[in-house]
Amino acid sequence: FEYDAPSMKTPVPGPKSQELKKQLGEIQNVGAINFFCNYEESRGNYLVDADGNRMLDLYTQISSVPIGYNHPALMKAVTNPNNLSAFVNRPALGILPPENFPEKLIETLLSVAPSGMTRLQTMACGSCSNENAFKSMFIWYRVSVLACSYVCLFKQAPGCPDLSILSFMGGFHGRTLGCLATTHSKVIHKLDIPSLDWPIAPFPRLQYPLEEFARENSQEEARCLEEVEDLIVKWRQKGKPVAGVVVEPIQAEGGDNHASSDFFIKLRNIARKHGCAFHADEVQTGGGATGKFWAHEHWGTDDPADIVSFSKKMLSGGYYHTDELQPDKVRLTRGALSPTPPPVLCVFEPQGYRIFNTWMGDPSKNLFLSEVLNIIRRENLLEEVTRSGKALLQGLYELQTQYPHLLSRARGQGTFCAIDARDDVTRDNLLLKTRDKGVLLGGCGERSIRFRPALVFKEHHAHQFLNIFNDVLAEY
Amino acid sequence: FEYDAPSMKTPVPGPKSQELKKQLGEIQNVGAINFFCNYEESRGNYLVDADGNRMLDLYTQISSVPIGYNHPALMKAVTNPNNLSAFVNRPALGILPPENFPEKLIETLLSVAPSGMTRLQTMACGSCSNENAFKSMFIWYRVSVLACSYVCLFKQAPGCPDLSILSFMGGFHGRTLGCLATTHSKVIHKLDIPSLDWPIAPFPRLQYPLEEFARENSQEEARCLEEVEDLIVKWRQKGKPVAGVVVEPIQAEGGDNHASSDFFIKLRNIARKHGCAFHADEVQTGGGATGKFWAHEHWGTDDPADIVSFSKKMLSGGYYHTDELQPDKVRLTRGALSPTPPPVLCVFEPQGYRIFNTWMGDPSKNLFLSEVLNIIRRENLLEEVTRSGKALLQGLYELQTQYPHLLSRARGQGTFCAIDARDDVTRDNLLLKTRDKGVLLGGCGERSIRFRPALVFKEHHAHQFLNIFNDVLAEY
Ligand code: FES
Repeated sequence: FEYDAPSMKTPVPGPKSQELKKQLGEIQNVGAINFFCNYEESRGNYLVDADGNRMLDLYTQISSVPIGYNHPALMKAVTNPNNLSAFVNRPALGILPPENFPEKLIETLLSVAPSGMTRLQTMACGSCSNENAFKSMFIWYRVSVLACSYVCLFKQAPGCPDLSILSFMGGFHGRTLGCLATTHSKVIHKLDIPSLDWPIAPFPRLQYPLEEFARENSQEEARCLEEVEDLIVKWRQKGKPVAGVVVEPIQAEGGDNHASSDFFIKLRNIARKHGCAFHADEVQTGGGATGKFWAHEHWGTDDPADIVSFSKKMLSGGYYHTDELQPDKVRLTRGALSPTPPPVLCVFEPQGYRIFNTWMGDPSKNLFLSEVLNIIRRENLLEEVTRSGKALLQGLYELQTQYPHLLSRARGQGTFCAIDARDDVTRDNLLLKTRDKGVLLGGCGERSIRFRPALVFKEHHAHQFLNIFNDVLAEY
Repeated sequence: FEYDAPSMKTPVPGPKSQELKKQLGEIQNVGAINFFCNYEESRGNYLVDADGNRMLDLYTQISSVPIGYNHPALMKAVTNPNNLSAFVNRPALGILPPENFPEKLIETLLSVAPSGMTRLQTMACGSCSNENAFKSMFIWYRVSVLACSYVCLFKQAPGCPDLSILSFMGGFHGRTLGCLATTHSKVIHKLDIPSLDWPIAPFPRLQYPLEEFARENSQEEARCLEEVEDLIVKWRQKGKPVAGVVVEPIQAEGGDNHASSDFFIKLRNIARKHGCAFHADEVQTGGGATGKFWAHEHWGTDDPADIVSFSKKMLSGGYYHTDELQPDKVRLTRGALSPTPPPVLCVFEPQGYRIFNTWMGDPSKNLFLSEVLNIIRRENLLEEVTRSGKALLQGLYELQTQYPHLLSRARGQGTFCAIDARDDVTRDNLLLKTRDKGVLLGGCGERSIRFRPALVFKEHHAHQFLNIFNDVLAEY
């Protein structure tokens, strides 16, 4: 089914891509376009471009392709007559779900629910997942901690209280205004856009390989945790209490910054101690690339978070959460315990419209997810990812030993790997040269190269990449 | 192809829907669920529920179904082997678009571009469309009016300046944090969620039928416009200048509030006079339901707005805009004219990543849109909408004359109609009773009933509804 190897006909972008870029440039900004693709001809790990170049894809549409291009199981899902209606009739899920909706959720998204999370809200992309996860935390905090809510359509407290979300330097949680207020990975994302006065904590800047710098790293993590606690107190005193703490298990866009399980467990405890919800953003880390279905499983705790958001490889979006964060449950379970005046939320309108939008997800994407989960199980893809990830990381270690003037800080979990180049110019050059030899990579952070292959990336693909990369480095 | 008439077997929700609601309630909040649907069995204007009830649908998934359920042209689009790859391989459109992307855009979205708008940004839903439209206006304003931008990753000006968007009381533009700051239709949408200090102008509260109250209405509109101008000045003085004014051509969620063409044209001129961009939010009004493809076409101007956002009936989302609002163009066309210091935006990173996310839309939805546009043209659906809308509104006028103690303020454009009930309880009762007789309607505002049929809603469907509604009113 798949191709054997890259096959390059032109430099990338080739003449056809350049022509198309000019054409599209008449319609929209094309500053970020790499090249145009022939998706029909792409297969598995190989992406084919408009000029007929075939590349081994280790970037997979910003980490959003779970089992490669044109997987036969997905093709079959489209042509299955039973699925036709799901493609053609997109429902307003929040008011008129299809009759098989509960069953489909149980079969798909709930079958991979994180530990301790029985509740699930579907959404359509990473941004609406995080925006609504934030809203859930605000609503929860409001009732559980502030104890009551009055009518207020406008901006004054207590209707729209000055609550905040604590996020981390280098974090990325999306680009809509609420998400953007917690995103601090690159200048250009935030430039010119108004923001909110929410606290930003330092994220540990660790040394790699982690095992070799255990003492230094644990000091660095302690420093950051202390700062988190200080910020929570400071923002409470400011009158903008922190309703939730949001963090990625591995900071992805911000440069593949890792932290230890110990860090995350302590962070979750600090959040709990101060009455803040704890939100693990698994939009990029979720879906298997770290060798576990969720990256937080590496923390080894059965109470990892209050809320876990997802998208990308999960093909649509949404978030899981604990019982306690359900808007109507909050009122029942915590409201009664709180001081006067009693919660009066319910008198206005059904709670059901608090987390709501027109589509609330897309059941046609869940059909594909159902197939993806089958394939992951049937083909033991998480084990495969662990195996090919090991080969990839081992190869990166060897290359950084061989080319210490060019590469450093190889790191990774599963195939979710990265390595740093000497500087941003070198990084960008390496990306382009490797692409011209038939491997598609992505950058992240200031000077990192990130690896985000699909879950069908095998050991031999790792070696194929490492050989090509070695050639590029040798010539550099 | 279609059914002839409603056919009711049980009250709605029937036992099967109730059972499913209980099941889904274990997983998520079901406060907003009406009933569960059998989309396979639904056809054209008729929605079939899990209990086998068949209803004439005048609400169409919150106005998001353009040409009815299971339209043969859409079914064919799914089974067309040429389309398979578009369903299976969702690209990161901003970096790796399919080779047919420019051509498909020209064929579909650009073929219905509003007057004066040559540029188009695709998105995935109404919220990301509006969030990014706001961002475009901020970026534009920043360069064109404030003249320069410095590096600033965090919150202090000038990197993230205190800019604002002016919106209207009763307006609805979505529920993510940026959109929500401009949404003022219902208390519950905003409760407990932090907001931004942005100005909110009164929207004209007109008397209907509009022709009969021309003098009063024009006074009311003048009052609101004056207030808009005052707010723009006030917020500028506050140091939070208004970068853009956002308005719906008909306020939909807020209660189907209309205003005259004169109002919108004057509003656009006020925005221009003060250097603010003008954004027409056509998420609910766009796509043909008013009898024109865009509701702003009723204004009769060839320069209706700087930016027009859409979603729902357009099946994905996005916004059109004028050349001037293109981030990179702004710098070229206006930057040079502005005072010191010169714009330095471009030195950091490609402009292409300023309006960006993983998917940037969904080409598989555009395949359906292409079919929808064909059907609209081939079957002259805009004329049909005008015709059936006239029958519907005429019928509503007659009913409000017949039942003046129950109904008032019938209004509409095309089939985008509404009527007010005596109070919210009456409205809610009428909706339920009408549903049990086989017609699905929606509420909006405090006590309005809104009509949002698909574009394939014909005169005889209008009469079918009017007869049933008349029975309900007679029994009430
Ligand atoms: S914000 Fe997620 S699809 Fe629009």
